[in-house]
Amino acid sequence: MMIKGVFAWDGEHWLFDPEDRFGFRATWKVNRVLAKADSDFQEVAVIETEGFGKALVLDGVVQTTEKDGFIYNEMITHIPLAAHPKPADVCIIGGGDGGAAREALKYPVQSVDMVEIDPKVVEFSRRYLPEVAGDGEPDPRLRFVYEDGTRFVKKRAQAYDVIVVDSSDPVGPAAVLFEKPFYQDAKQVLKEGGILVCQSESPIFHPDVLKRVHHTLGELFPVVRTYLAAIPTYPGGVWSFTLASLGPDPLQSDGHRLVMNENRYVNRDIWESCFRLPQYVKELLD
Amino acid sequence: MMIKGVFAWDGEHWLFDPEDRFGFRATWKVNRVLAKADSDFQEVAVIETEGFGKALVLDGVVQTTEKDGFIYNEMITHIPLAAHPKPADVCIIGGGDGGAAREALKYPVQSVDMVEIDPKVVEFSRRYLPEVAGDGEPDPRLRFVYEDGTRFVKKRAQAYDVIVVDSSDPVGPAAVLFEKPFYQDAKQVLKEGGILVCQSESPIFHPDVLKRVHHTLGELFPVVRTYLAAIPTYPGGVWSFTLASLGPDPLQSDGHRLVMNENRYVNRDIWESCFRLPQYVKELLD
Repeated sequence: MMIKGVFAWDGEHWLFDPEDRFGFRATWKVNRVLAKADSDFQEVAVIETEGFGKALVLDGVVQTTEKDGFIYNEMITHIPLAAHPKPADVCIIGGGDGGAAREALKYPVQSVDMVEIDPKVVEFSRRYLPEVAGDGEPDPRLRFVYEDGTRFVKKRAQAYDVIVVDSSDPVGPAAVLFEKPFYQDAKQVLKEGGILVCQSESPIFHPDVLKRVHHTLGELFPVVRTYLAAIPTYPGGVWSFTLASLGPDPLQSDGHRLVMNENRYVNRDIWESCFRLPQYVKELLD
Repeated sequence: MMIKGVFAWDGEHWLFDPEDRFGFRATWKVNRVLAKADSDFQEVAVIETEGFGKALVLDGVVQTTEKDGFIYNEMITHIPLAAHPKPADVCIIGGGDGGAAREALKYPVQSVDMVEIDPKVVEFSRRYLPEVAGDGEPDPRLRFVYEDGTRFVKKRAQAYDVIVVDSSDPVGPAAVLFEKPFYQDAKQVLKEGGILVCQSESPIFHPDVLKRVHHTLGELFPVVRTYLAAIPTYPGGVWSFTLASLGPDPLQSDGHRLVMNENRYVNRDIWESCFRLPQYVKELLD
């Protein structure tokens, strides 16, 4: 069974990152393809890699792996949830692998709505990637909504304390999640003092995306903070997230609300350091 | 002209990272090989990559690039130099590309001795990589010593305030620079209150190396601090440095001695954040 991006080479199979705008591609040795399907939106696959364990791959692009998925999933959820004084209702747009939902449910929230456009991503992640998605009983606070995130946010108002935009890259089905109309609608869905966070790509490989997201959110929200994490499987290793808030400013908090429950990346030190940016990122955002 | 690690593929040339212990390899599109020579120690080459500009490559391993060499070079020099209250005499072991020396000379030091085993690395870097090495007049405070670093440190005593061990990976000529005998000799070469810093590899791909370096230095020095930076071209993106001190503790300083002179990575925010480690790195070092 072959999937997009995998090439045979010297009797081995390697998945090549399609990122070639900069003539730089990461490659993973693939032991086997565990599952593959063409959904209405993309090619969805779960593979077993030599070094990173199992991985979810969409249209040939690695989304999350057993070995380092925790970094992304902890960073995109713990930071906004701990920044909010009392996050009761949470919405995750995308995040079909279930990792962000798992982290969000560590907080004393009332509900987590997971709005994923592609049911196949959720199905495969739950069946083949319990290491990321979790394998316990489904948490009664978690609700799955299979819908386009941009449509979902048009139909509600002031429903959530925190919205996590856990999207893939701004190509294909996720592109609209990086545009102003979506952010405007998402803002209306936030309750008073609500917080939105999104992954805003690599400051090295996609500085234009980060700059645009930061700027656009700055037109809509009084508080906008970009933070970074080092994620080995994403191109360039360093990844950005941008938090936009209608009220609380994470820089005014000492992170005492962070839940430490089997965290492997996020702790108080990460809270204190992740908003502190290298000079080249500061200059990019100024 | 071909060099180690470069393969032709679909009419293009790509350099493959030899890191395959984890079935993960970074690859760079190579436009051309600018220079190549077999020195007494290794294959030394300077290539022009599609996305990272020119790069120094030793035995097929990318050492530094025009695009992101500044991150490594600023982190390995500014942190120890700003941690020391008055760094007068500095020794760089390795660092033949000249980037660390360039950064060290931004400080009001009296002398920088650069001890590089391979003159070919220095020659090629100065001739083909002025973007990293600098292209101004040679600074009279800088002295080149072409010698094995392990031998060099045996012949002196209490000569330096800061020693920067800017080595390649712990294979080939640099392997001994990760061993206790070298650290013991290096300690003797430090003046009172002196500081040694070394690159200690990736916490993701070489956790054993980082753990051993941290532990070994802890047996010899009263203060040992590991810090991190996100460096796109190194495998895994996140890289560690370990600072060992006979006196000053960087955690007791606010970084006010950092020199900001065209820095592109290091600033006060990086000073405040680089010693704050993610949970998985803390657990590795505990």
